[in-house]
Amino acid sequence: MNYLEIDPLLIMALKEDINNEDITTNAIMKNDKKGKAFLYAKEDGIICGLDIFSRVYSLLDPNMNTKFSVSDGDEVKKGMEIGFVEGSIKVILEGERTALNYLQRMSGIATKTRKIVNLLKGTNIKLLDTRKTTPNMRIFEKYAVRIGGGINHRYNLSDGILIKDNHIDAAGSITNAINLTRAYAGYVHRIEVEVESLSQVKEAIEAKADIIMLDNMDKETMLEAIKIIDKKAMIECSGNMDYDKIELMKEIGVDYISSGALTHSAPILDLSLKHLKVE
Amino acid sequence: MNYLEIDPLLIMALKEDINNEDITTNAIMKNDKKGKAFLYAKEDGIICGLDIFSRVYSLLDPNMNTKFSVSDGDEVKKGMEIGFVEGSIKVILEGERTALNYLQRMSGIATKTRKIVNLLKGTNIKLLDTRKTTPNMRIFEKYAVRIGGGINHRYNLSDGILIKDNHIDAAGSITNAINLTRAYAGYVHRIEVEVESLSQVKEAIEAKADIIMLDNMDKETMLEAIKIIDKKAMIECSGNMDYDKIELMKEIGVDYISSGALTHSAPILDLSLKHLKVE
Amino acid sequence: MNYLEIDPLLIMALKEDINNEDITTNAIMKNDKKGKAFLYAKEDGIICGLDIFSRVYSLLDPNMNTKFSVSDGDEVKKGMEIGFVEGSIKVILEGERTALNYLQRMSGIATKTRKIVNLLKGTNIKLLDTRKTTPNMRIFEKYAVRIGGGINHRYNLSDGILIKDNHIDAAGSITNAINLTRAYAGYVHRIEVEVESLSQVKEAIEAKADIIMLDNMDKETMLEAIKIIDKKAMIECSGNMDYDKIELMKEIGVDYISSGALTHSAPILDLSLKHLKVE
Amino acid sequence: MNYLEIDPLLIMALKEDINNEDITTNAIMKNDKKGKAFLYAKEDGIICGLDIFSRVYSLLDPNMNTKFSVSDGDEVKKGMEIGFVEGSIKVILEGERTALNYLQRMSGIATKTRKIVNLLKGTNIKLLDTRKTTPNMRIFEKYAVRIGGGINHRYNLSDGILIKDNHIDAAGSITNAINLTRAYAGYVHRIEVEVESLSQVKEAIEAKADIIMLDNMDKETMLEAIKIIDKKAMIECSGNMDYDKIELMKEIGVDYISSGALTHSAPILDLSLKHLKVE
Amino acid sequence: MNYLEIDPLLIMALKEDINNEDITTNAIMKNDKKGKAFLYAKEDGIICGLDIFSRVYSLLDPNMNTKFSVSDGDEVKKGMEIGFVEGSIKVILEGERTALNYLQRMSGIATKTRKIVNLLKGTNIKLLDTRKTTPNMRIFEKYAVRIGGGINHRYNLSDGILIKDNHIDAAGSITNAINLTRAYAGYVHRIEVEVESLSQVKEAIEAKADIIMLDNMDKETMLEAIKIIDKKAMIECSGNMDYDKIELMKEIGVDYISSGALTHSAPILDLSLKHLKVE
Amino acid sequence: MNYLEIDPLLIMALKEDINNEDITTNAIMKNDKKGKAFLYAKEDGIICGLDIFSRVYSLLDPNMNTKFSVSDGDEVKKGMEIGFVEGSIKVILEGERTALNYLQRMSGIATKTRKIVNLLKGTNIKLLDTRKTTPNMRIFEKYAVRIGGGINHRYNLSDGILIKDNHIDAAGSITNAINLTRAYAGYVHRIEVEVESLSQVKEAIEAKADIIMLDNMDKETMLEAIKIIDKKAMIECSGNMDYDKIELMKEIGVDYISSGALTHSAPILDLSLKHLKVE
Repeated sequence: MNYLEIDPLLIMALKEDINNEDITTNAIMKNDKKGKAFLYAKEDGIICGLDIFSRVYSLLDPNMNTKFSVSDGDEVKKGMEIGFVEGSIKVILEGERTALNYLQRMSGIATKTRKIVNLLKGTNIKLLDTRKTTPNMRIFEKYAVRIGGGINHRYNLSDGILIKDNHIDAAGSITNAINLTRAYAGYVHRIEVEVESLSQVKEAIEAKADIIMLDNMDKETMLEAIKIIDKKAMIECSGNMDYDKIELMKEIGVDYISSGALTHSAPILDLSLKHLKVE
Repeated sequence: MNYLEIDPLLIMALKEDINNEDITTNAIMKNDKKGKAFLYAKEDGIICGLDIFSRVYSLLDPNMNTKFSVSDGDEVKKGMEIGFVEGSIKVILEGERTALNYLQRMSGIATKTRKIVNLLKGTNIKLLDTRKTTPNMRIFEKYAVRIGGGINHRYNLSDGILIKDNHIDAAGSITNAINLTRAYAGYVHRIEVEVESLSQVKEAIEAKADIIMLDNMDKETMLEAIKIIDKKAMIECSGNMDYDKIELMKEIGVDYISSGALTHSAPILDLSLKHLKVE
Repeated sequence: MNYLEIDPLLIMALKEDINNEDITTNAIMKNDKKGKAFLYAKEDGIICGLDIFSRVYSLLDPNMNTKFSVSDGDEVKKGMEIGFVEGSIKVILEGERTALNYLQRMSGIATKTRKIVNLLKGTNIKLLDTRKTTPNMRIFEKYAVRIGGGINHRYNLSDGILIKDNHIDAAGSITNAINLTRAYAGYVHRIEVEVESLSQVKEAIEAKADIIMLDNMDKETMLEAIKIIDKKAMIECSGNMDYDKIELMKEIGVDYISSGALTHSAPILDLSLKHLKVE
Repeated sequence: MNYLEIDPLLIMALKEDINNEDITTNAIMKNDKKGKAFLYAKEDGIICGLDIFSRVYSLLDPNMNTKFSVSDGDEVKKGMEIGFVEGSIKVILEGERTALNYLQRMSGIATKTRKIVNLLKGTNIKLLDTRKTTPNMRIFEKYAVRIGGGINHRYNLSDGILIKDNHIDAAGSITNAINLTRAYAGYVHRIEVEVESLSQVKEAIEAKADIIMLDNMDKETMLEAIKIIDKKAMIECSGNMDYDKIELMKEIGVDYISSGALTHSAPILDLSLKHLKVE
Repeated sequence: MNYLEIDPLLIMALKEDINNEDITTNAIMKNDKKGKAFLYAKEDGIICGLDIFSRVYSLLDPNMNTKFSVSDGDEVKKGMEIGFVEGSIKVILEGERTALNYLQRMSGIATKTRKIVNLLKGTNIKLLDTRKTTPNMRIFEKYAVRIGGGINHRYNLSDGILIKDNHIDAAGSITNAINLTRAYAGYVHRIEVEVESLSQVKEAIEAKADIIMLDNMDKETMLEAIKIIDKKAMIECSGNMDYDKIELMKEIGVDYISSGALTHSAPILDLSLKHLKVE
Repeated sequence: MNYLEIDPLLIMALKEDINNEDITTNAIMKNDKKGKAFLYAKEDGIICGLDIFSRVYSLLDPNMNTKFSVSDGDEVKKGMEIGFVEGSIKVILEGERTALNYLQRMSGIATKTRKIVNLLKGTNIKLLDTRKTTPNMRIFEKYAVRIGGGINHRYNLSDGILIKDNHIDAAGSITNAINLTRAYAGYVHRIEVEVESLSQVKEAIEAKADIIMLDNMDKETMLEAIKIIDKKAMIECSGNMDYDKIELMKEIGVDYISSGALTHSAPILDLSLKHLKVE
């Protein structure tokens, strides 16, 4: 994540939280002082977004200093002190909520992703995310998935082809849709098709799709589909990836599973900034 | 939510999902046609964000038409058709994910808020949100809390005074902090103090705080605090608002409870846009 | 005033004055040199905006250096040399007008504010500003009021409640207006009502307004209003605050007076940048 | 003033006054209604900025309707009803202050300009403005000068050459400065030089300046300068343009006078929006 | 090209050409009138960008009307009247240069592309563009290539993998580079490698590259490379695509050729807007 | 070119080429290293835009270092190593195309300009550019013309008066057009008129135009026009400036010639960044 991409988002988020001034802080700190506040984990999980936490502070004031005892992707335990921010007390107080809002959300997603990745250990199944991200948070959320051990599916509508039910309706048939996308953009991009029935699987394979996504199929249908595909395309399974579904995936032996819930419904990881010391 | 405030955010979100073009759609729809796609609830909940859903489409193309059989705040049931979007098929496909990402998240928050508000029925306890919102989503998330039946706490650091532990550390004492904020901004704003002990309650009351927030106190301490406050200030209780905690709140009889989880950890409400018809 | 808030405004102002290039300067200084120019007061007044003056130059070139013998809020006298800017001569010339336009206007407002504050010395009357500021100058003008010794009323429509005549017309009555605002936003914000008659004063007090603004009342009516209010609300008097009006305020003994002219009609304080030395 | 240029400024000004919402209005008008409010002059003057007033409202809501009985440049009298705004009451209340802040300031400048232009009637002397405008208000303030009857000097550093004392210091001499600017940009632009002494006048004329600005000279020096210039260049006189100075200008018979005070120190023209009627 | 993507670019271009006002036009048209001006081809070529021409005018004034007798991709002949713009004369004059600058450049690229595509007629060779576009013009230039009959290579660094010499140097070997990109992003994207020797061709094929780009090879080497590749990957040839080179490509029988000159060195197609009629 | 003006354009160009990430580079360089890559000329020409090349890299990462053995305006020869960029390998790879796209285009324009300037050597004829620039590239392209030895005509519609055929049609006559522009903006700006016939030349001279542009006239007409003008105005000749036309200009002896092709149809100068070394 380079700064040209993320700074405008971080600055907007800071302005969302500070319109003209932080009145509480400005009242209390008429004469600013240096200080230090400490970052704590309030529950177990995977930390993610430490650079964002630091960058939020640097954007407010280039002289702020942060230091962490962990790195993105590491486990943290409830109660652990995991770092500090040091510098102008005004700035520590002004940036606290925005910095934590990013860090907590990204860590929540990394934590949820890691849990599923751990369930998949010992298999070749890879975990993919989706475009079901929070608006204006995609770059951070997709990064958190990677840190959790997942793989990113396409970033957006411009960098990947995925033919879904509405596209098939619009094109008239899977075959049409595949041929049109191959002619338009098949040079650079693989062609993925989402299918709901075995006849769709056959049609997609005949039209030479590169990836087939099996959407919410039951076990027997999936097994039959895998037989039809016969390694002529990569296979992705989607649908509500709970414990039972994942066990089924492992049994069937697919290569990719995708989960929207990684980004749209992960609870945050609870963290706090406390024990401000005036220096 | 007027458009001057939300349009820049919606446009950024659309650009996050479409960098230069939607390649799948442009390949399939070289000659655009009119069509219609239908919005369905995939689980029970409170719908919220219908105007945002429509506005996303209007920003892509002012000729898009949406119609809904429900309004923000209404209950929807799994399987229900709740509206449609009509117009250019290209635009229906391009806007789908962004429009749904907003609608699902806002509905998820309204649904979670409504559940707690329902638990509080028959009491005078009011439910508040916090600033623990997703970056660049605050205006939508705070709106969803209102639609769910909650009340918004301050919007950001510029429009409310809340003296927290780090501010008290910075100011030296609760009394200092209250006096400084009253002199600086006490004309327009009420002064709220977050306290963790009974001695802090006493100090805040003596310094004439307008609102006292009791942070994570046990039952006995809260009861004692309420006695000390003696209606000289409004009372807010915060902390993890699960079922048991809420029952306790009802028993004790506080006036306000606040919950960060309303906005930071509500799962989405699952919705989908299906059955595209070419017209 | 942190830089995230003010830099976009300063940059826009610089671009307003330099579209593509400063043709005079670029013609004369094909090979740039270091130099120094001096800032002079051309009349007596209160200086305000020195950080803005410096920031304008830093935004053009981070290597510019400014130094002042006075601080914001200090008195300056006609003819006084009050500082200098040093660095690239091109940049000294390019930034001069923009830097001075801010400094002169802010100093003009601080000077006018200080004059009234001095008239109020020895009383408890506090001087408030209004939202009658120059568009896109509010953050600078409200700061100048504080430097002059005034207190800021609400910053904008989002961070304070003020029920005015048009709101009362819209709501049907003062009582309605107060009850509606208390339910909507009364938790965080005080409720202020602007009144024009004694019956309005009574209604506002009965509906428990927190602040009553007496708008353009004569002496007798004000005295009667104060009796009715009876310390149940804070009192603000507005209207054209000339010398006579202020004397009346002192006689009556109100707590707050507000003046739009502080920001909308203060003449600038005349300053100049002269005696450029090539180094 | 086309909308591509002014809309971004008006939108910023609206956002300056409404961060997330107008809480007073939103509380009172949960169900919006149509209404009408009337614009009154509270003192005599020249009205200017009516299109801006309308545009502020259109940007908030394209359905707003404004109508005026006067046009930019017309005289208004204290107490006169000069128009109305009609549409959503919410929008009438939200836009009021921003619309008036522009209209009052622009009318104040037009009023001050007209007064001086009237003093110059019967002569050939033309009144010029300067770049001493309020930051981010130049396009509006220079327009107001034209409406008042003045002529705009250069808009900014990119579209006119004006060699001032600091440029002469930087270039080493007036002759150098003129030659360098002629070579760099003399094809499109006239070359103006600000002079303080008769020897500077001579040097400027010899170097073929197109315009000579006589800065703060006394009567005798000016008369001598005019003789030296001998119609070989246009003449502009600057300095504090009070009544006496203007009489002197008329006596001497110069062609152009310039005044910074037109834009930097004009008091506003007092206007108000009252008598909201719910429709 | 939807408007959310292109409008900000068109608005910037208009502001580049009109800082505060079009002084010539504003002087001449104090009272605006309706008029009509006609668009002529001044040389033979392929027209491209008519929607952009119209949009430039619509952004200045939504009431402008344009009409064309040709469509993007059609041939135009020297002297042909190909359409008109109608509406405010001020706006016709203000938008002329910007609208033509886009139209001429896009038509120039379409014309150059069409010429090469015509040379390739009767073969299966497809013509690709590159990322060698003019900064902030890519969306328009890549569109013009498509209109001319070419196919777009990747849009930018985010939506396609192309391993070039510097990447190979950085990764240590072609094999490393291919394996690393496959693991990171091989799910959605094809992997293309640029090679300069036969040993590189072999290595790329063994590492299972999806596309091989033969960079500036001579005929014999290309023929040998094609034998090695043996239909296991798609083949692209790059290098200066003049007439002789294209004949060679046809002889050899490759599938794709790419040319940077399509976008970086196409001369414009000369067009003009003339014969303004006042209506 | 100061950074406030050009940085937004460079950042947009970088984002055009990197939407969310450079996937090839991020895959290969999971652990970034320092490196160095070298800039080579692939053909003879005039180098221009070296500061822009450096700035593109600095905006991506302030720690990047560039060094050149030549300066803007110097000749480079095919095969010459003309500098290097050093720092993060990731950043070298991410910025390469954008940095080169600017440098190649600016150098192409400087090269074309220099060729014509060289043809004009030994005469007093000066070479002017036009507003026929690539949208959002004007500041760079006009700079390249200056570096090539040309002189800039007006920058845009706001800083120069040029009355063309459509303006004359709109104003009714050349005389009207000149008088209107003189009254509106003649104080700061010279007045230029484009003429197509001798009668227009006469009218323009009588109305006291400052500059006459002879548009596409034949030799005899031009000679006659020059006689009519008789040094009462500056003379500019425009039209397709090929070798023969330039010889004619030299023979006739005009003072200024203008050429749109300098900016709208110059091919790029071919440059490359090669030989990346990992440090």
